Amino acid sequence: MTIRCLARFAVSCAGLALAVPAATAQERLPAGVTANVPTRVAELRDAALNDTVAYDIVEGLTTEIGPRLAGTDAEARARDWAVTKLKSLGFRNVHIETYQMPVWMRGEEKAEVIAPFSQPLRITALGNSGATPDKGITAPIVYFETFGDLTRAPAASLKGKIAFVSNQMVPTQDASGYGTFGMARFVGPQIAAEKGAAAILIRSIGTDESRAPHAGNTNFRDGTTPIPAAALSVEDAANLERMVKRGKPVTLHLLLTPKQIGLQESGNVIAEVPGSDPDAGIVLIGGHLDSWDLGTGAIDDASGLGITTAAAHRIMQAGTPRRTIRVVWFGSEEVGAFGGEAYAKAHKDERHVLAAESDLGADAIWRFETNLPASAAPIGDRLQAALAPLGIARGPGKAHDGADIGPVLRQGTAAIDLNQSALRYFDWHHTAEDVLERIDPEQLRQNVAAWTAMLAIVADAPEAIGTVDS
Amino acid sequence: MTIRCLARFAVSCAGLALAVPAATAQERLPAGVTANVPTRVAELRDAALNDTVAYDIVEGLTTEIGPRLAGTDAEARARDWAVTKLKSLGFRNVHIETYQMPVWMRGEEKAEVIAPFSQPLRITALGNSGATPDKGITAPIVYFETFGDLTRAPAASLKGKIAFVSNQMVPTQDASGYGTFGMARFVGPQIAAEKGAAAILIRSIGTDESRAPHAGNTNFRDGTTPIPAAALSVEDAANLERMVKRGKPVTLHLLLTPKQIGLQESGNVIAEVPGSDPDAGIVLIGGHLDSWDLGTGAIDDASGLGITTAAAHRIMQAGTPRRTIRVVWFGSEEVGAFGGEAYAKAHKDERHVLAAESDLGADAIWRFETNLPASAAPIGDRLQAALAPLGIARGPGKAHDGADIGPVLRQGTAAIDLNQSALRYFDWHHTAEDVLERIDPEQLRQNVAAWTAMLAIVADAPEAIGTVDS
Repeated sequence: MTIRCLARFAVSCAGLALAVPAATAQERLPAGVTANVPTRVAELRDAALNDTVAYDIVEGLTTEIGPRLAGTDAEARARDWAVTKLKSLGFRNVHIETYQMPVWMRGEEKAEVIAPFSQPLRITALGNSGATPDKGITAPIVYFETFGDLTRAPAASLKGKIAFVSNQMVPTQDASGYGTFGMARFVGPQIAAEKGAAAILIRSIGTDESRAPHAGNTNFRDGTTPIPAAALSVEDAANLERMVKRGKPVTLHLLLTPKQIGLQESGNVIAEVPGSDPDAGIVLIGGHLDSWDLGTGAIDDASGLGITTAAAHRIMQAGTPRRTIRVVWFGSEEVGAFGGEAYAKAHKDERHVLAAESDLGADAIWRFETNLPASAAPIGDRLQAALAPLGIARGPGKAHDGADIGPVLRQGTAAIDLNQSALRYFDWHHTAEDVLERIDPEQLRQNVAAWTAMLAIVADAPEAIGTVDS
Repeated sequence: MTIRCLARFAVSCAGLALAVPAATAQERLPAGVTANVPTRVAELRDAALNDTVAYDIVEGLTTEIGPRLAGTDAEARARDWAVTKLKSLGFRNVHIETYQMPVWMRGEEKAEVIAPFSQPLRITALGNSGATPDKGITAPIVYFETFGDLTRAPAASLKGKIAFVSNQMVPTQDASGYGTFGMARFVGPQIAAEKGAAAILIRSIGTDESRAPHAGNTNFRDGTTPIPAAALSVEDAANLERMVKRGKPVTLHLLLTPKQIGLQESGNVIAEVPGSDPDAGIVLIGGHLDSWDLGTGAIDDASGLGITTAAAHRIMQAGTPRRTIRVVWFGSEEVGAFGGEAYAKAHKDERHVLAAESDLGADAIWRFETNLPASAAPIGDRLQAALAPLGIARGPGKAHDGADIGPVLRQGTAAIDLNQSALRYFDWHHTAEDVLERIDPEQLRQNVAAWTAMLAIVADAPEAIGTVDS
C-alpha cells in the first residue's frame, strides 16, 4: 500500500494517515497554514475515502445507458435514470428542466489514401462538420505541421484540396495543452473553409498513441458554409505524415455524411440537499450528463456526476447544512454547453453564492484554487488545511473552471476549482475508449473526499459569501 | 540507460556489456556452459544491436502497404514491395511463388443491446463466420462464463439464441494462454452451431482493456453450416457481462454480412543468401507477409519479416556462409497457413536442415529451445553461450514453433525456437492497434542480434545436421 501510494499519488498515504485523529492531519500542514480543520470536516473527508456511491453512478450510467449524445433518446433515458438514482439516494426537489437545442448527427465516415499508396485511415467527423457528396470527394492533401502553419497559408491556396493539420497535443497536468493544441479543432475548420479547402482532417486532439479518433465540436461562423471536417486517430495521422514525408503528392478519398437535424429536446436534472438558512444562498455543484457518442462517457463526465453527487450525499447523511447544496446534472455540454445556459437563465433570480464543477475525469485532484470575496477568505484557508492531507496544494490562480457553471460565474458568483490531473485524461477524451475501465476507483474516492471536505466547509461557513469579479 | 534496462528487460544491459570484447561475455555465462563464442559470432551479434534494417522493413510495410489480407490486391502489392526491398538489400534468387487459396471477406458488422438496456457494442466478425440476413437477427443471449461452460450446454439448448462466451484471456510470457483461451474462438462457433445457436459472440481473445475487437479465424467442420460468429472487444464483453449479471434477460440485434469469395491468388516471396557448400543443406527462416485487415500488421508479422531478413542480411554482408540461408515471406498465414503448405509442397525435394520462424511480435527474446539431432548437439551449446549475454536462457522443451514452417518441420527438419515475450503481444494481436507504434525499436534490435548470432552459428556449423523426430 505504501509502495503503491509512493509510486502513484499521495492519496493512499493520506488515507492511511487520516485513520488517526484529525490533530495528526494538522501536523502535516504546510508551514504558514494556520487554519484548523474542524473535527467534523476531517471525519467526513476521511470517511469519503471509502465511498462507493460515485463509482456506482459511473458503473450504472455506462452499463445501463452508455453513449448519450445531447438531444437524443439516449440522453432522455439518461435523465430518467438520473431522476430514479437521485431520488433513491434521498435527494430533495429532484426534477428535470427541459429546453430545446440544435442537434448534429454523425453519419458514415470513411477515409482512404489512394495515392501514392493505398490504405484506409480511421477518422471521426467533428461536431458541426459539413457533409461530402454521397460518393465522397477525392482530392490532394496540403500538409500543415502545426495549426500556426495553417493560419499562415495564403488566401485561396487550399481551393479544392484537403487540409491536413498534424498537430500533436502534449500532455499537461493542468490541461492547458487542450487550449493550445485544441485550436486546430476549435477553429481549424473555419480557417480552412475561409482559404477555400474542400475539407479538413486534423490529428486528433489527444495524447494517446492509438487508432481511436477523438470526437469534439468545431464551429463555423455565420456566413461560412461548413466543410467536411474530421479527426484522424493519432496513429493514422502519424502514418499519413510518414507518407507525406516520402515526398510524393498524397491523394485521399473522403466520405462524411453527418447532418443537422434541427432543434430537439435536452434537459438538466436537478437535485437538492436543502439548507437550514434560506438567506445564506445556494452552493451549486455538478457535472454533465450528456456524452459524446463513441464511448460510454465514463470520464466525461459520469465521474463528475458521481463525485459531486456522492459528496453532496455525504453532507446530507451527516445532517442539515446551513446552505442549500444544489447538484445539477447538466444536459448537452459537449455540443455547446446549452444546459448551463438554460440553467442560468431559468435560475437567474436565485442567489448562488458559490459554484464548482467536476469535468476533467476521475484522476486525483492535485490543486485547488478559489475566487472568494475578501469577507470569505477564511474559507480558502480552512480548505487549504483540510485538503493538504489528500495531497492537494493551493494554486496561485483565480478559480474559473466550468463550461456549465460559466454563465452563473459570470453573474459574479464565487468559485472553487478542484483541479484533477489531466495527464491521462486526453488519452481517452471523446473517444470510444472513454469507458468504465478508465476509472481508477482509488483516485475517484480521493475526489469524493476532497469534494466532501469542500462542501462541509463551504455549506456551513459562518462567513457571508458575497459577489466577486468573475 | 541502466535504470531503463533494469526496469524493462536485459538487452540494454547486454548491449552495453557487449561493447567490450567477447571474452567478457564469456564471463557472464551461466555455470555449466562451457562452449566458447567464436569472436566472429560475438562481433556480428553485438553489431546487430545497432540494426536499422528490421525497423525499416516494418516502417515501410505499415506505411506503404498497410493492411494486407491474404488473397487481396493489398497482399499482391505487398509481394511486389517485398521483391523490390529484398533485391535492394542484395538478396539472391528473389522471386514470388503463387498459389490459390479460399478467401473470406469481412462485410458490415454491428451489434446492439436492445433490452433491458440499449447501447451499441463493438464487434468484429471471425474469419469464416457465416452471415446474418441483411436486416440482421434479434435474439436473446445465453451467457457462458467460460469456454468449458459452453461445451457442457445441453444439445439443442441454444436453438434460436446467441451464445455469449465471456472468456478472459490471461497474459503469459510463453503465449500458452493463446492455446488455452483461444479455444473459444477456434472451436466455440462449431460447438455453438452444433447446439443450435443462431449466432455466437465471444470476448476477444486478447489481454487488453480496450474497445478494439480482435479478429482471427474460426473453422466449421464439413457438414456444419457456418453461423454468424464475432468477437466483442474486451471492454464491450465486460459491459455485456455486467448487464447479464443484473439478472434480466438480455436481447441483442446482430448484423454480419461477410462472404466467401472463392479461390484467389496468394503467394510466398523467397530470397536467398547462397551458401558455399550445396551439400550442407538449407537453413529456412522467415515470417508471414499477410496480415489481418484491421491493423497494419506491424507486430503480426512485419516484425518477423524484419527480424529474420535483417539477420540474414548481416550474415550476407559478412561473407559467404557454409549453408544457404533461405528467407521466406510467407503468404496467407492468418487464414489457414496456406503459404506454408504451398512452400513445403513446392520444395519437398530440397534438403532443409534447420527451420526457424519469427511470428510473435517484436518484444525481446527471453528463451530459446532446440530440436537437433545428437550429432548437432554442440550447436545448441554454442547458441546458449552466444545468447546468454542478450538475456536469453535455454528452455527445457523441444523446438516446434511456427505455423508456416510446420509442414517442413513435420518432414523431420531440425528446429530452433527463439521465444519472444508474449506478455504484451495479445494486447494488440489481430486488432486495429497492430501498427508501427507497437514496435519497441530497442527490443526489436535485441531480436535481430539473437537471430544474427543463431544464423552465424547454424549456417557455418561444421557438424552435419541430420533429421530429427518432429
